[in-house]
Amino acid sequence: MIPRYSRPEMASLWEPQTRLRIWFEIEAYACDALAEIGVVPKAAAETIWQKGNGLNFDVARIDAIEKVTKHDVIAFLTYLAEEIGPEARFLHLGMTSSDLLDTCLAVQLSRAADLLIKDTDALLAALKRRAFEHKLTPSIGRSHGIHAEPVTFGLKLAEAYAEFSRARARLVAARAEIATCAISGAVGTFANIDPRVEDYVARKLGLTPEPVSTQIIPRDRHAMFFATLGVVASSIERLSTEIRHLQRTEVLEAEEYFSEGQKGSSAMPHKRNPVLSENLTGLARLVRGMALPAMEDVALWHERDISHSSVERVIGPDATIALDFALARLADIIDKLVVYPANMKKNLDALGGLVHSQRVLLALTQKGLARERAYTLVQRNAMPVWRGEGNFLDLLKKDADVKAVLSDAELEDLFDLGYHLKHVDFIFNRVFGAN
Amino acid sequence: MIPRYSRPEMASLWEPQTRLRIWFEIEAYACDALAEIGVVPKAAAETIWQKGNGLNFDVARIDAIEKVTKHDVIAFLTYLAEEIGPEARFLHLGMTSSDLLDTCLAVQLSRAADLLIKDTDALLAALKRRAFEHKLTPSIGRSHGIHAEPVTFGLKLAEAYAEFSRARARLVAARAEIATCAISGAVGTFANIDPRVEDYVARKLGLTPEPVSTQIIPRDRHAMFFATLGVVASSIERLSTEIRHLQRTEVLEAEEYFSEGQKGSSAMPHKRNPVLSENLTGLARLVRGMALPAMEDVALWHERDISHSSVERVIGPDATIALDFALARLADIIDKLVVYPANMKKNLDALGGLVHSQRVLLALTQKGLARERAYTLVQRNAMPVWRGEGNFLDLLKKDADVKAVLSDAELEDLFDLGYHLKHVDFIFNRVFGAN
Amino acid sequence: MIPRYSRPEMASLWEPQTRLRIWFEIEAYACDALAEIGVVPKAAAETIWQKGNGLNFDVARIDAIEKVTKHDVIAFLTYLAEEIGPEARFLHLGMTSSDLLDTCLAVQLSRAADLLIKDTDALLAALKRRAFEHKLTPSIGRSHGIHAEPVTFGLKLAEAYAEFSRARARLVAARAEIATCAISGAVGTFANIDPRVEDYVARKLGLTPEPVSTQIIPRDRHAMFFATLGVVASSIERLSTEIRHLQRTEVLEAEEYFSEGQKGSSAMPHKRNPVLSENLTGLARLVRGMALPAMEDVALWHERDISHSSVERVIGPDATIALDFALARLADIIDKLVVYPANMKKNLDALGGLVHSQRVLLALTQKGLARERAYTLVQRNAMPVWRGEGNFLDLLKKDADVKAVLSDAELEDLFDLGYHLKHVDFIFNRVFGAN
Amino acid sequence: MIPRYSRPEMASLWEPQTRLRIWFEIEAYACDALAEIGVVPKAAAETIWQKGNGLNFDVARIDAIEKVTKHDVIAFLTYLAEEIGPEARFLHLGMTSSDLLDTCLAVQLSRAADLLIKDTDALLAALKRRAFEHKLTPSIGRSHGIHAEPVTFGLKLAEAYAEFSRARARLVAARAEIATCAISGAVGTFANIDPRVEDYVARKLGLTPEPVSTQIIPRDRHAMFFATLGVVASSIERLSTEIRHLQRTEVLEAEEYFSEGQKGSSAMPHKRNPVLSENLTGLARLVRGMALPAMEDVALWHERDISHSSVERVIGPDATIALDFALARLADIIDKLVVYPANMKKNLDALGGLVHSQRVLLALTQKGLARERAYTLVQRNAMPVWRGEGNFLDLLKKDADVKAVLSDAELEDLFDLGYHLKHVDFIFNRVFGAN
Repeated sequence: MIPRYSRPEMASLWEPQTRLRIWFEIEAYACDALAEIGVVPKAAAETIWQKGNGLNFDVARIDAIEKVTKHDVIAFLTYLAEEIGPEARFLHLGMTSSDLLDTCLAVQLSRAADLLIKDTDALLAALKRRAFEHKLTPSIGRSHGIHAEPVTFGLKLAEAYAEFSRARARLVAARAEIATCAISGAVGTFANIDPRVEDYVARKLGLTPEPVSTQIIPRDRHAMFFATLGVVASSIERLSTEIRHLQRTEVLEAEEYFSEGQKGSSAMPHKRNPVLSENLTGLARLVRGMALPAMEDVALWHERDISHSSVERVIGPDATIALDFALARLADIIDKLVVYPANMKKNLDALGGLVHSQRVLLALTQKGLARERAYTLVQRNAMPVWRGEGNFLDLLKKDADVKAVLSDAELEDLFDLGYHLKHVDFIFNRVFGAN
Repeated sequence: MIPRYSRPEMASLWEPQTRLRIWFEIEAYACDALAEIGVVPKAAAETIWQKGNGLNFDVARIDAIEKVTKHDVIAFLTYLAEEIGPEARFLHLGMTSSDLLDTCLAVQLSRAADLLIKDTDALLAALKRRAFEHKLTPSIGRSHGIHAEPVTFGLKLAEAYAEFSRARARLVAARAEIATCAISGAVGTFANIDPRVEDYVARKLGLTPEPVSTQIIPRDRHAMFFATLGVVASSIERLSTEIRHLQRTEVLEAEEYFSEGQKGSSAMPHKRNPVLSENLTGLARLVRGMALPAMEDVALWHERDISHSSVERVIGPDATIALDFALARLADIIDKLVVYPANMKKNLDALGGLVHSQRVLLALTQKGLARERAYTLVQRNAMPVWRGEGNFLDLLKKDADVKAVLSDAELEDLFDLGYHLKHVDFIFNRVFGAN
Repeated sequence: MIPRYSRPEMASLWEPQTRLRIWFEIEAYACDALAEIGVVPKAAAETIWQKGNGLNFDVARIDAIEKVTKHDVIAFLTYLAEEIGPEARFLHLGMTSSDLLDTCLAVQLSRAADLLIKDTDALLAALKRRAFEHKLTPSIGRSHGIHAEPVTFGLKLAEAYAEFSRARARLVAARAEIATCAISGAVGTFANIDPRVEDYVARKLGLTPEPVSTQIIPRDRHAMFFATLGVVASSIERLSTEIRHLQRTEVLEAEEYFSEGQKGSSAMPHKRNPVLSENLTGLARLVRGMALPAMEDVALWHERDISHSSVERVIGPDATIALDFALARLADIIDKLVVYPANMKKNLDALGGLVHSQRVLLALTQKGLARERAYTLVQRNAMPVWRGEGNFLDLLKKDADVKAVLSDAELEDLFDLGYHLKHVDFIFNRVFGAN
Repeated sequence: MIPRYSRPEMASLWEPQTRLRIWFEIEAYACDALAEIGVVPKAAAETIWQKGNGLNFDVARIDAIEKVTKHDVIAFLTYLAEEIGPEARFLHLGMTSSDLLDTCLAVQLSRAADLLIKDTDALLAALKRRAFEHKLTPSIGRSHGIHAEPVTFGLKLAEAYAEFSRARARLVAARAEIATCAISGAVGTFANIDPRVEDYVARKLGLTPEPVSTQIIPRDRHAMFFATLGVVASSIERLSTEIRHLQRTEVLEAEEYFSEGQKGSSAMPHKRNPVLSENLTGLARLVRGMALPAMEDVALWHERDISHSSVERVIGPDATIALDFALARLADIIDKLVVYPANMKKNLDALGGLVHSQRVLLALTQKGLARERAYTLVQRNAMPVWRGEGNFLDLLKKDADVKAVLSDAELEDLFDLGYHLKHVDFIFNRVFGAN
């Protein structure tokens, strides 16, 4: 992923040093296990840790070896042999490259998932704070982009909170999907390596042993992982899209924070654009697009082919880095979002009371009118208001058929905002729990 | 989905009759709840059940009404008013169309998930039976399509069993994602409907109340559902691809059952093609492709827009019907798969013992050779065998440098098949549990 | 595709009768060609046409045969033998099933492309008419959803016209991609069939002979075809999204036609929602999602495998029917779109003249100010206006630094709408040509 | 794209220096055009070229400015002002950022397309050379992975040649799609900039003026571009998959070149794996996955939103670099592919003559048997051979019903390989033209 959309902690997970360090640890833990069951001298395992622990892996040297061997793991082992000396011959005993590569990827992806979960927690905290801040800030609810009935801005954020709580749970499940360890040899039969080694390494790295691997950890796990990231990214797109809508000139109910010195446009000095949210919309598309190659990776040939490798070298870092960046950016946007309650009120009132049309409909029905008849009465008074010709309440009061069943006072009662907000507490309790 | 790929039980879930029946039940349960809290006369709720229960929903009549109203739910309610009479005015009180549509979709998708889980169980049963049948049928393991080391055919099926066990767990999770109920009114505020109605209907239908809905149930749930189907389809593709490979003329280790009268080719009477597995490969692509629109559906505008509707009208039935068909077909393929152990043995022996090369490598290392040196010794004896020039064991016995550390008897011991199969029991225990 | 999104002409292309008719024609033309080169008696070829031409293909009978043979083409040929009698033995001579299937698909997809091109022409006509109608209807241009500078509504439609002109050209190219004929036998070598047959059949059906087929027509052609449909669908999404934005309550510059009796919401009688455009957004997602399986179909195994078949049985009809429906619906929406020039003017004026900020910036620069300095002067007067505190022109007139270089009269000149529209004719000429 | 899959020429296209250089040229050409029409002093335009031409753009300095302005183009212009001095105030006059960004992207993508076309030419050359080399090397054609009838290895390559000729034509068309220039100002109206500037800059950069832009160049163009790359990538996957199949142990008809020192497996020294082709399979998945976000970018809001930007910053370089790498790697694989005609012959003969079954079927038909009857006769002799029980020719000779119509000599004639290859020249002429 390009630096523009990378944050250091997540990016560092995917740097060669990190990968080589994890490789070394897997090999060294495997050696410990082999020492424990008597295959390898204990002293050798200790020497490996001693010499390896201090290593600052020389990426350029390893790359140079790979140029010849055309095999990255062999290059790494050759390098270790150079650095560690004769004890290096006890490394990788009975293992196959994928034991190293796949277990390492499991470590990287679990750590990446941990960061994503942490990001989501920060976003949830921001959403919760702002939701309670605006719990009762009235705002118009819209379906189809058209004014519907009143909500509060806090409810919008509560919905986002609930959605990202689900995202969090999905990330936790996705993490469990890929946090497995395979040290099972060339075709997964443990022919040349005792299964206890796998158990030991898994325990040390916080992973679960893969029940049955076939040289590789099966890729349905990774497909599920990246598909989950795609779904989480789609939720980011949803909230970003909401902000973009709210910042539209005609709506202007909320606005991304605009820092000192920031310029909206090289040509139009007046502009304040929701560029961060738009940016997130694009990032969501990217992350979503990476779910597909991950799913195509599942059907590897027989016990394995290596077609997944080029895919994962790219989407492993790219999807996690982009999503980390997007979650953090979204948390920041929410945290600093400039909210305009006065504009919310202005928009809420814009339709001349039409937002109360359903309540009038229900009242007419409760007075005994057939639903169809009530609908007609309401619609014929609503349409002129929609065209800007008059106020809904006034027109209803003048409609003889309405008058026949609802008094002016009864009609006025139907235009009460509190009526719509009476269950906000109930919903907040469902979303955030009783506080 | 076209009839060719539809099975009746799943298809019937998506027929208008089923949908209208569920719609009626939601409306009638809501009426019961309203009666319980005193909003609606109990007698009216009873009448609604009485008259509605016997209804054979007249789809043509409802379609005719929709032609005028351009709104499917209003057409349905108008139809109910015609059939049920005056009590119909107590239907849909304070509800919005999406309360009906989304809750109905939740019922349909949960039932669909139940069928998919049942399908997966049948597939698992077939896999388990065949896995134990061939637990110790030796077979060559292949990486990159190239012979690697011995496995058993049972291990291949055990891997598939483990993979579809994960698929099952994912389907269970996906079911939980979408099994929620929303009866919360026009923008989800319960302005015109008591939250107890939602609770009641949810309970009656076996759903969970949606913590916060915004006219609609949030679409991240459905995105996760369809993404999961895409991952399950990808596992189907994997196993199908394995079978297609095994049936290749040059491999012929297994074959789809070929019924009497079946013809492989209109032009070539000798052909027996793995057409069922190929078909599943294509179906997997289809189901996977439907995950994308579902993810794009998440970012609806504000409290809702209806762009998800056309997507779901198509992929709701199509993805579930295709996957149901694919799982059932795969179970049948596995169940009847013709397995050729003799051919497996023939292929296993084809490389003149090369499959034992790693073991030789390890033995040389254990005798004290540096890994690099051992690798060179093995490779120089392997390459002629690869080119069809000689038998691996013979060449090793003649190699002076090998001879220097390994006696003929020691070398012969390294060429033992049992060595590779000694942990099959252990793996089976991990996958299937102790029996 | 479900009936809801199907139009009869396109749907009929994909009905069994149509397919069987095309199959018959391919077989009969092939017979003619074989008669011409003396392989088959001319009388037999004539009999085949005579008896076949009148056939009302009995789909149920053919399905029944397929149940036994598990092969659709063999079932069809068996049926023809039943109906045509002994001359039927001259049918399919040296051909393979795919010769029939693929050439038939080419005919169906070319006809589908013809309909899509016709649909696009109708849409272009509607766009052109409305573009000229509103060529000089001023309207605010928006970037990032924020008011930028004036445009006209006609310009928006001119852009759409230009975009769908490109869509048309792409459809023409996509048609050429798939309009090829293959009658080359089991593996494309013409072993059992003279290449002149292919030439003859191609000519008769308006197709080009496939230069080299391998039993099948290569699937990169179909991938390109469906990818193109995905791009065209994305342009539909763009224009639909524009309409959805314009119909938003706060914007209301245009509105989908709302017919008598139509109901916007079961709960809220006042609603008039852009449901047709929203529907098109969803259909675009569907069509786009079908490009992926088509691309995955390209890598068939060796000379062919049949995994593409299940994909194409579904997306062949679904993508073309949905796109046909969407193009026609969009043409209708544009045709009847209710446009509100007064609201456009109101929105244009809403920002208190801020839309002229760039022109002021340029004027300051032309007076000799450094760009950075000019930007600062403009922005400091723009920001209060943005917050609703004052009118841009008034503030500029009061700013001493601005005053120092621009007189009141000069400033007023900069706020002229005509300035922005002076090149509309030029653009229309580029898009529509000189009229 | 990661360095592993990057080639220098394509990668350099996407480096900041290249982009800044193109930005400068666009600005400077625009200045020339403005000087020509008298808006800007000619001397200023000259100074800009003089001072700008020598610039080694200081990316760090520009990044530092962007940190404050949060706008990349403004940062660039500020930097230019620092470097060029007072004449810099004539830069960007009446232009908007996207005039720069989109025109620059057009230049980058066209140059990228040129490289991809060049890559394809190299691949075509390799395919042609190897196709003619193996024009008459017999090889078994396979459908469904099952032996069908004879082809030649040259025919396989001829098909690939024809497919990549189409890929080339598609790349040429895709290049034309995106090679447009927009210098039309904030909302595309040329309000502050004369259309002649656009014409001039377009001409200088080898682009076509965009007929109607709306601040941005419409993104259907880019969607078509990236969709095309996805289709080309799919053809790469097809040919790679063919090679992977041919290198399978049981098939071994061809093999990727295996260099000195290369190691196939860290554990199994005997392995020679088709890792390059597998790698291409993965890269194809990646490039394909990028078509989706590009299609989603089309529906930008109103005159523009910036959500496409993050997508293009990633897929612009990634898709072109990966495809460049893949095409070059594939050309190299084909160039050096090790072909084993003897193994092809061995496989061709493996089915005991079954590959001639269709010809026998046709001969029986020509002798007057009904097709159905002939099919039965052939199949009953083919099935035992399929099971390894006998030779097809021998069995046919012993079948009384066959004997009744075909003599032994006639039967033997039907088993002639030349029969299948007689039209190879014809096909080569169609694909490569008469030489």
